[in-house]
Amino acid sequence: MKVSIVGGSGYTGIELIRILLNHPKVEIDKIVSESNKGKKVSELFQNLKNIFEKEFIGVSNLEVELKDSEYIFLAVPHKAAMEYVPMLLKMGKKVIDLSADFRIDDFEVYEQWYKENHVAKEYLEEAVYGLPELNREKIKKARLVANPGCYPTTVILGLAPLLSEKLIDINTIISDSKSGVSGAGKKCTATTHFSETNENFKAYGIASHRHTPEIEQELSKLAKKDIIISFTPHLIPMTRGMLSTIYSNLISEQTEEEIVELYKTFYKNEKFVRIVEVVQTKNVRGSNFIDIAVKLDKRTNRIIVTSAIDNITKGASGQAIQNFNIMAGFNEMEGLNLIGYLP
Amino acid sequence: MKVSIVGGSGYTGIELIRILLNHPKVEIDKIVSESNKGKKVSELFQNLKNIFEKEFIGVSNLEVELKDSEYIFLAVPHKAAMEYVPMLLKMGKKVIDLSADFRIDDFEVYEQWYKENHVAKEYLEEAVYGLPELNREKIKKARLVANPGCYPTTVILGLAPLLSEKLIDINTIISDSKSGVSGAGKKCTATTHFSETNENFKAYGIASHRHTPEIEQELSKLAKKDIIISFTPHLIPMTRGMLSTIYSNLISEQTEEEIVELYKTFYKNEKFVRIVEVVQTKNVRGSNFIDIAVKLDKRTNRIIVTSAIDNITKGASGQAIQNFNIMAGFNEMEGLNLIGYLP
Amino acid sequence: MKVSIVGGSGYTGIELIRILLNHPKVEIDKIVSESNKGKKVSELFQNLKNIFEKEFIGVSNLEVELKDSEYIFLAVPHKAAMEYVPMLLKMGKKVIDLSADFRIDDFEVYEQWYKENHVAKEYLEEAVYGLPELNREKIKKARLVANPGCYPTTVILGLAPLLSEKLIDINTIISDSKSGVSGAGKKCTATTHFSETNENFKAYGIASHRHTPEIEQELSKLAKKDIIISFTPHLIPMTRGMLSTIYSNLISEQTEEEIVELYKTFYKNEKFVRIVEVVQTKNVRGSNFIDIAVKLDKRTNRIIVTSAIDNITKGASGQAIQNFNIMAGFNEMEGLNLIGYLP
Amino acid sequence: MKVSIVGGSGYTGIELIRILLNHPKVEIDKIVSESNKGKKVSELFQNLKNIFEKEFIGVSNLEVELKDSEYIFLAVPHKAAMEYVPMLLKMGKKVIDLSADFRIDDFEVYEQWYKENHVAKEYLEEAVYGLPELNREKIKKARLVANPGCYPTTVILGLAPLLSEKLIDINTIISDSKSGVSGAGKKCTATTHFSETNENFKAYGIASHRHTPEIEQELSKLAKKDIIISFTPHLIPMTRGMLSTIYSNLISEQTEEEIVELYKTFYKNEKFVRIVEVVQTKNVRGSNFIDIAVKLDKRTNRIIVTSAIDNITKGASGQAIQNFNIMAGFNEMEGLNLIGYLP
Repeated sequence: MKVSIVGGSGYTGIELIRILLNHPKVEIDKIVSESNKGKKVSELFQNLKNIFEKEFIGVSNLEVELKDSEYIFLAVPHKAAMEYVPMLLKMGKKVIDLSADFRIDDFEVYEQWYKENHVAKEYLEEAVYGLPELNREKIKKARLVANPGCYPTTVILGLAPLLSEKLIDINTIISDSKSGVSGAGKKCTATTHFSETNENFKAYGIASHRHTPEIEQELSKLAKKDIIISFTPHLIPMTRGMLSTIYSNLISEQTEEEIVELYKTFYKNEKFVRIVEVVQTKNVRGSNFIDIAVKLDKRTNRIIVTSAIDNITKGASGQAIQNFNIMAGFNEMEGLNLIGYLP
Repeated sequence: MKVSIVGGSGYTGIELIRILLNHPKVEIDKIVSESNKGKKVSELFQNLKNIFEKEFIGVSNLEVELKDSEYIFLAVPHKAAMEYVPMLLKMGKKVIDLSADFRIDDFEVYEQWYKENHVAKEYLEEAVYGLPELNREKIKKARLVANPGCYPTTVILGLAPLLSEKLIDINTIISDSKSGVSGAGKKCTATTHFSETNENFKAYGIASHRHTPEIEQELSKLAKKDIIISFTPHLIPMTRGMLSTIYSNLISEQTEEEIVELYKTFYKNEKFVRIVEVVQTKNVRGSNFIDIAVKLDKRTNRIIVTSAIDNITKGASGQAIQNFNIMAGFNEMEGLNLIGYLP
Repeated sequence: MKVSIVGGSGYTGIELIRILLNHPKVEIDKIVSESNKGKKVSELFQNLKNIFEKEFIGVSNLEVELKDSEYIFLAVPHKAAMEYVPMLLKMGKKVIDLSADFRIDDFEVYEQWYKENHVAKEYLEEAVYGLPELNREKIKKARLVANPGCYPTTVILGLAPLLSEKLIDINTIISDSKSGVSGAGKKCTATTHFSETNENFKAYGIASHRHTPEIEQELSKLAKKDIIISFTPHLIPMTRGMLSTIYSNLISEQTEEEIVELYKTFYKNEKFVRIVEVVQTKNVRGSNFIDIAVKLDKRTNRIIVTSAIDNITKGASGQAIQNFNIMAGFNEMEGLNLIGYLP
Repeated sequence: MKVSIVGGSGYTGIELIRILLNHPKVEIDKIVSESNKGKKVSELFQNLKNIFEKEFIGVSNLEVELKDSEYIFLAVPHKAAMEYVPMLLKMGKKVIDLSADFRIDDFEVYEQWYKENHVAKEYLEEAVYGLPELNREKIKKARLVANPGCYPTTVILGLAPLLSEKLIDINTIISDSKSGVSGAGKKCTATTHFSETNENFKAYGIASHRHTPEIEQELSKLAKKDIIISFTPHLIPMTRGMLSTIYSNLISEQTEEEIVELYKTFYKNEKFVRIVEVVQTKNVRGSNFIDIAVKLDKRTNRIIVTSAIDNITKGASGQAIQNFNIMAGFNEMEGLNLIGYLP
């Protein structure tokens, strides 16, 4: 099956290529990047030399260029994505959008947090939030999947069992989250400058990060109640990896063991979710796994969930391919038998 | 004035030496390390070559060896410290103990968390908790100062203004704290192994870290009520630096601006406390500063305090020298005009 | 086909497992580690959780335990390897030895550099030096393959075309080589201690590193003359990756373009060798490629070759599996379609 | 004494400020940065908060602004420096120029390597190359000091004793040099992008780096013969620190011990040069020291010198202040009693 990638020059783009090249059922047809038009992909990403020698194509004439591609991975920034989606759907493509443009059901919430007018509101209703562990059936039938943000993936999967079982006080949820620098993308900024970021640790976007409404929307669906949380992202001086430490107050009588059992049961059929004793980002690096550990702090009766992913894989491109596999009716693990590597 | 360091072969030891060598009022007399006895300090710490050429001395005959030293910095592990303190005090020395042995007022709490019998209980009452910003007057008169832990320094100074003014619900305090690897010391372990720790991030000691009772004891004094908190330490893949993100619910009507003002007033005479907009560990690296930022999350009415120190300097050896300056009647900044360096 | 790994608890062991688990023609039968006997492999290497749930077995009764395994990967330290090889060959196994014990043809040279008596001299003659790009035909027929060292792989493949064509003065060869910390293995030492190694760079083993005679032996075979080189290894503050900068004086008239052409021709059938403009370790990280760039410094008439590998993959376990594929008659790339990943 | 810094917004600028603020004989008068005009220096460099609260001034009206400053540190890029120097000298200032503009005696060589017209040729003759260990007497009398490049500092001081004593074949000199990322400055580029550079190692500017003619010029003066070398810079994934591994053929009979003695004698009065057994960048980090180790490879009769500095301190701003102390008649160590810190 032929697929194409629009916006192939960023980190989620190269990660899509890295994984899809070993996907037994897929051929990558076109890689679209107007700014790199005519340049070999392997010139920009030299890890691909001798492996993938296609050139980037530009955005003109996509109707023709993409005609053989059944599925399109949209790896462009938010705002740009909403301009491609209508055209691609009209062309009869199925779209996995890695941007934020179709994650928020309520366009007013989107516009408030992203400070952009939403120009494709009419597609919000049919867009499916692409978290396979929670929305698999909807994803199977979707034309347009909104691939989740990296932080939301760690928080939503980290809390889903507790919220479904109504074990926690929903007014006490705090996620203290930490990300590697690759999450800031390929653009050069003070934040991505080596000498500024190496041997440094900081919080950013306190009480104002755009992933907050996305997390709250999905947690609210799980709890069937409106949930407001505190979410604080931090920057770790490393390239790949994300870990969230999630606090909430237990309102029931379970023991830690019972809650761990609950998690194992909740995720028992999920190939990419591992319930573990201790979580560290290195165990999932380069893989599509999310590792989750649950502790009960008896002194305060708080549940402390830690969850870790590779922000570019399960946090973006790996999850996009997981969604694609579901949409296309493939085995969900196809191409995703990636082992997080040590050391 | 002559001072000596007992336990000079670890990271707090070398940091004491690094700072004291530029202290205008101090001469380092003896460096005690039984395991390195007879070896040049500059052989173990080659940054000192041509600067400091004394040899480590052993522990035999300390009565004679230390006779000229008015002050002793005790940089040995907990358990070892409580065995030195009685002897040193009987010798008429003033002691700054960098270990945990005299930080906890109640020996039963100590024994429960540290799993050791306390063999010098009788000195606990006179030991002063060496956080100058809160206990300066007591430190002036102390014979024995228990130098605070690194994590407690960030949490206690981060919350002191809020607790003194009773602005927060003391049942909602959570400190999500992160430390560089040097906090784990010079010993080789899986945690300090480069290939295990580099490009990795993890939580450890969830709901069980030994700094918890130390933090709770001091916070309780500030609030004049018993406080229990959740404290989660994490390991950052960098050498120096510590940052705590501290959450609590506001129970009063202040605005963020008013609370920031409160912090500036509370610390207005403190040379080593800086109230800033944004905290990052690099700004304090190698210095004795603690940087603190305060945000009010209006959506949840939570106060989010971030505080950052260099874990070896303000978190250990720098603070020990600050305490020494106070005890000796020197200017508190003597030898501590260290500028955190960028890049 | 069933294979087993003896010495599965180190970094080359886990890398063998990581790769072999996705090898379509292989089943991992046994993982031998006396010190971890009875423990789950995924307990030691948590990246394998839910993927590989076998336990380590001990060394007793290997005759029975390994009876179904046609091929054995020997991932134990040098000295230990020479004690396993005779037994394994007598059992009729084919052995890929990742240690240094069978790399040096002349046992006296081995004993001089490794300060060990060689107790399996009689197998040195049949042992094949497992550098597929140079010894493929011999490897096909070998019972015992000595898998090359990481540094030698970069230097030998980096110089092979120049030496075969006699383009350089063999008395002017200098390799200034740099390695990530994982090359020092899983053992905790000052060199592998994060706080000592992070933000640090140093040379080590100047004019005395054990890989020197291995490099000289193979270069001498290529030149059909005895070659003595200067080899200086350095430690890079990163986990994976190795780069050698190799200097020699050109004694012929070629232009840089002609020499680059020569390299492309020399390696034109080699799937894992890429001749590139600029070499960086990140392009090969996690893959079995070696990237090589060639520059001619016209001012000095020196050839400057840079070559880069992942020290654990092409420098150890990946190359071992490449050798195994050749010995077993599989496609040489089977299981090795690994893409060095960015970022 | 009042000094000012022109171009204070880069890494050499902040390092000058960091050191000068603790210089007992100096007051920093003005910090010039047109792009940051009116902004507090401590807003750009938050490590200075509460320590240094002056604002950047612009470039208009410097005649007035700088009237009280006897010495000017020029920390602007090359090309910009040559435009300031004439004006500053005409104003009667003494200038320490950290750029490359006045390091090369022959403007044609400068123009060939830097691809710029030299617009202040007439000052090249009086400019003194500011390597105190070799040119102290000239520096004392200079109006204009050209502060050396970081790489040249490591190579020239590393080879000076060998060349002065004519112990090596000058046609065999190779410097394989490695630098931390801070050497690339504050500008955001692919090279300084964290995700591109972290966990990566590469060579750059092979046979073409601009520091080559500077190194050759000074080595030629020492040898009193024209010297051409091979110089290969590399990028280390760390912030601060530089190490050069320098190869040359011994043409005399000395033993390693005799050569080490020669180095100790040559530098016996030099406070910032340490002859050591093993060199590592961490030992000099944040200090003005250069550590040098010398090994003789008996098998090849090559001398292998390793030398390490902090590229921003002894490699730039620290050396500039050392030059300033000499010019001003101060103790050369004034303000430079900086101890490279561990861990």
